[in-house]
Amino acid sequence: MTNARYVSLLKKLSKLKTNILNKDFLLTWERSDDEINAVTLVAEILKEMHKEGRSIRVFDTGLAISIFRDKSTRTRFSFASAVNALGLGLSELDEEKSQVAHGETVRETANMISFLAEVIGIRDDMFLGEGNKYMREVGSAVQDGFDNGVLHRRPSVINLQCDVDHPTQALADLMQLRSHFGSLQNLRGKKIAMTWAYSPSYGKPLSVPQGIIGLMTRFGMDVTLAYPPGYDLIPEVVDVARKNARADNGRFEIVDRMEEAFANADIVYPKSWAPYQVMQRRTELLNKNDKAGLVELEKECLANNARYKSWECDENKMKLTTKGEALYMHCLPADISGVSCAQGEVSKSVFEKYRLATYAEAGFKPFVIAAIVFLTRIQNPAKRLDILMNKRRQRG
Amino acid sequence: MTNARYVSLLKKLSKLKTNILNKDFLLTWERSDDEINAVTLVAEILKEMHKEGRSIRVFDTGLAISIFRDKSTRTRFSFASAVNALGLGLSELDEEKSQVAHGETVRETANMISFLAEVIGIRDDMFLGEGNKYMREVGSAVQDGFDNGVLHRRPSVINLQCDVDHPTQALADLMQLRSHFGSLQNLRGKKIAMTWAYSPSYGKPLSVPQGIIGLMTRFGMDVTLAYPPGYDLIPEVVDVARKNARADNGRFEIVDRMEEAFANADIVYPKSWAPYQVMQRRTELLNKNDKAGLVELEKECLANNARYKSWECDENKMKLTTKGEALYMHCLPADISGVSCAQGEVSKSVFEKYRLATYAEAGFKPFVIAAIVFLTRIQNPAKRLDILMNKRRQRG
Amino acid sequence: MTNARYVSLLKKLSKLKTNILNKDFLLTWERSDDEINAVTLVAEILKEMHKEGRSIRVFDTGLAISIFRDKSTRTRFSFASAVNALGLGLSELDEEKSQVAHGETVRETANMISFLAEVIGIRDDMFLGEGNKYMREVGSAVQDGFDNGVLHRRPSVINLQCDVDHPTQALADLMQLRSHFGSLQNLRGKKIAMTWAYSPSYGKPLSVPQGIIGLMTRFGMDVTLAYPPGYDLIPEVVDVARKNARADNGRFEIVDRMEEAFANADIVYPKSWAPYQVMQRRTELLNKNDKAGLVELEKECLANNARYKSWECDENKMKLTTKGEALYMHCLPADISGVSCAQGEVSKSVFEKYRLATYAEAGFKPFVIAAIVFLTRIQNPAKRLDILMNKRRQRG
Repeated sequence: MTNARYVSLLKKLSKLKTNILNKDFLLTWERSDDEINAVTLVAEILKEMHKEGRSIRVFDTGLAISIFRDKSTRTRFSFASAVNALGLGLSELDEEKSQVAHGETVRETANMISFLAEVIGIRDDMFLGEGNKYMREVGSAVQDGFDNGVLHRRPSVINLQCDVDHPTQALADLMQLRSHFGSLQNLRGKKIAMTWAYSPSYGKPLSVPQGIIGLMTRFGMDVTLAYPPGYDLIPEVVDVARKNARADNGRFEIVDRMEEAFANADIVYPKSWAPYQVMQRRTELLNKNDKAGLVELEKECLANNARYKSWECDENKMKLTTKGEALYMHCLPADISGVSCAQGEVSKSVFEKYRLATYAEAGFKPFVIAAIVFLTRIQNPAKRLDILMNKRRQRG
Repeated sequence: MTNARYVSLLKKLSKLKTNILNKDFLLTWERSDDEINAVTLVAEILKEMHKEGRSIRVFDTGLAISIFRDKSTRTRFSFASAVNALGLGLSELDEEKSQVAHGETVRETANMISFLAEVIGIRDDMFLGEGNKYMREVGSAVQDGFDNGVLHRRPSVINLQCDVDHPTQALADLMQLRSHFGSLQNLRGKKIAMTWAYSPSYGKPLSVPQGIIGLMTRFGMDVTLAYPPGYDLIPEVVDVARKNARADNGRFEIVDRMEEAFANADIVYPKSWAPYQVMQRRTELLNKNDKAGLVELEKECLANNARYKSWECDENKMKLTTKGEALYMHCLPADISGVSCAQGEVSKSVFEKYRLATYAEAGFKPFVIAAIVFLTRIQNPAKRLDILMNKRRQRG
Repeated sequence: MTNARYVSLLKKLSKLKTNILNKDFLLTWERSDDEINAVTLVAEILKEMHKEGRSIRVFDTGLAISIFRDKSTRTRFSFASAVNALGLGLSELDEEKSQVAHGETVRETANMISFLAEVIGIRDDMFLGEGNKYMREVGSAVQDGFDNGVLHRRPSVINLQCDVDHPTQALADLMQLRSHFGSLQNLRGKKIAMTWAYSPSYGKPLSVPQGIIGLMTRFGMDVTLAYPPGYDLIPEVVDVARKNARADNGRFEIVDRMEEAFANADIVYPKSWAPYQVMQRRTELLNKNDKAGLVELEKECLANNARYKSWECDENKMKLTTKGEALYMHCLPADISGVSCAQGEVSKSVFEKYRLATYAEAGFKPFVIAAIVFLTRIQNPAKRLDILMNKRRQRG
């Protein structure tokens, strides 16, 4: 990063008004434009400093806690990498090893683990209506603990994927677009196709498409959501997207053909998800522990999926996009036809063409998380970054 | 913390005679009054420094090892928080992932994991006669390794709960009393009721009540232990409590009615445990892998518990205490009637009144553990604390 | 360490030509003599600095990743200790908790976890033809990621035991010999007996004996490999040993009697392993998930093992060695007759005589790993060690 670039980013950052210190980061649409911009600026600075071998450590000690209620590789390592780079130690709350399973209330546990904690990263995306609620319970519990003198600091809860949003993914995706098109300003008028795609698997969360339509509608983009009949997203999030688009002179449209979404798209994001209604029934069946019902639902859902095998991002559909060269995006891992499954979300040749681009997209995530930790924990972030930069301390 | 308070604590600390460097910390009654006092002084200083945002880091690098042979949330995070705050890295010995299960002797494993270790925290409270013995085996193994030049440093073994004592809990409880009544001196003559309470669960360890009677009898307190017929503690620990009380002009008494213990009590600690004899039979059955016998014992024990459902800490019993306002204590999680179980150790209204107090009580534990690590690893702790304080280094 | 010793080691180090920066460390025979020497010099310096309580921290932050595809205690803690001492944070890729099991390719996962990684330590020794291959896939994936701008740094893959070699063990063993005989030079002409020994267990990997014959043949030693008919090692590794011995004027010989190997040996390394052909059949059966076949193979193999119960390192055999005082070595845990099994690799009295020596042998491993990390990550290691030494920073 040139010094001029650095000075310019820092100047922009210092002009933004953020109210995020010691707060939670749960949904991008709860955060102001300035706060979203701040995340991108800090993420870029931290990423560039890391690339140059510099230390971005701002904590001497302190705990970052992660709670993963679902399997995870990339988000787990992104969080681990980010908190390590900032100087925090990582402790995972493994609900199997802890007594949480033994009737402890969330309120109590949240305080018990937080006496020396700075951040709590949570992934809980399995059940509709549950994950985000749980994060808010944790946030409110530590707020209560702090207000009553139990906790010295009020740790920030960071959403590492819930049933509603996947903010660190959506922000990493935004960083990728910002990098690809040169600036957030340049996104204005660009068409992004967030479309359902066929997958032989079942029960994929809605949080990625919801995160994309909830965030990308804020930059004057033309956001087209496409899915087969019945594969709706949570209505409230669709409303958020509509409202965003109106407020920012962008467009938001829902269509039911992949080809229509791809037409003249500058960016395509083909990704499978389970229908909202199926996820709701699944949550009810899980709560009732109705195993036969779950088996039946999975069968039904896979059969329904199979009707839409043509929803694959292949070379023909890519030709429909702007100059046939839209940017392909995916949160990974993708279901690649002939590679990870017989038929899936994307053809082998399209994926291979954009494989490195999707890796680069994922590479923003650790720095997005680091930026969120930075902004939620550090007073006067612009000043602190300047101090860091001037120290010229190398990592190794 | 005012500077005057700090200077006064440090002055007291520097006058204490401790012989604890590179030693284990296994039972509070093996440590002198000066050593117990030193733990409380260092814990207070570290807690206050943490509250002020200061760094209490004294290690550049080094390993803290934890061995948890039972589920744990609060003790696990207390240990993780404490060692992180002091600058150590945490490595957990997971006996399922390691080869310990494959016939390695304790002696060998203890040395193999300790080449760069500073402390080994162990929780092993499941089997009577086993946990504390295991900790001593580990301590003697690393002593042997150090004496023979295998280890550069002799790591300290810290008891994070065994079959006999739960010293970090009892010391956190002591910190809570010290804070509530103003000083350890003020505890003289105060009545604490350590009483059994009904729980629908089975096999709760004896270490908390044993830890309380083993420690609180050293401060001139009036310690009353109450339990239904048959719910005895380990006789040797009861002897320790008697001896302590005699030596320190305190009182130690055993009664068989909760009400009698509560009468004019300044502090109440109602907590379930399994009878000593049941734990002994359970250990034998487990060693024989007698599953039918274990099921039978659990049934028998729960049936016996059920005879004492009236042993609940409720508002009526609280009225018997000094001004009806005794301090309620619990190591958490408590079995709260109508919350975590139909009927349990404490009524909902009593628990809710003291909920934040129990959280504060738990909040001392990370700093008690940090103080024990500090005192067992750092030469000249008073001088080292003064250096830390004068550095005025912030954590983040 | 005297200053003279330190200066002499550093001078030697600075004269060595190494080409190991940002490279992988997979097989000792892929690394030049200078590189092997460099590992021993850096390991000695780091170990002595640690003994003196000095900090050997060179990283401010950064991630070390471990992937253990088999149970492990000592290697796991050696790696954890080494990376902590150098200042890296440790994150374990637990394949059960991650989505690796769900169809992610190695190439993708390797990049996804490596955005802020310095080293990736891998243990994968279960299947012939698999472990080393997997490590190379990871290495090539991160090289690809680095070359294409996905990764800021190219992490080094470190072999923590594969199907072919166990380089950190073999190098720790070399450090033990270097320490015992005074120098690598003094190893010239010494006879080491790497012999099979009886064990009641089945399926022990070949990597330790292969590592020993692949490394010790490089120092002019007289390496004798002994095993019963059929217990062959991988032919390619035996060829490496032959070639090494020829190139360095040493000797390499295979015999079929333990006594013949022990005769006039200066060092004995009796250790069980499964025959190469059995491991091959086992890998095939595992790939076919042929459970009946696996049970049959285990039965057959144990029956065959039982024909060689006399292959035990006992006092009588030790008398055959030079002055009856050969150095006994083992990677631990050993199968000790009458201790960990009825009859095993070594008699109780022989093991007890050398028990502390085997602990000391194991004690080199964390520093060997630290040296490999140091050499693969740090530019100009001699200069960096000198800076470290002159800082005189204490660890705690």
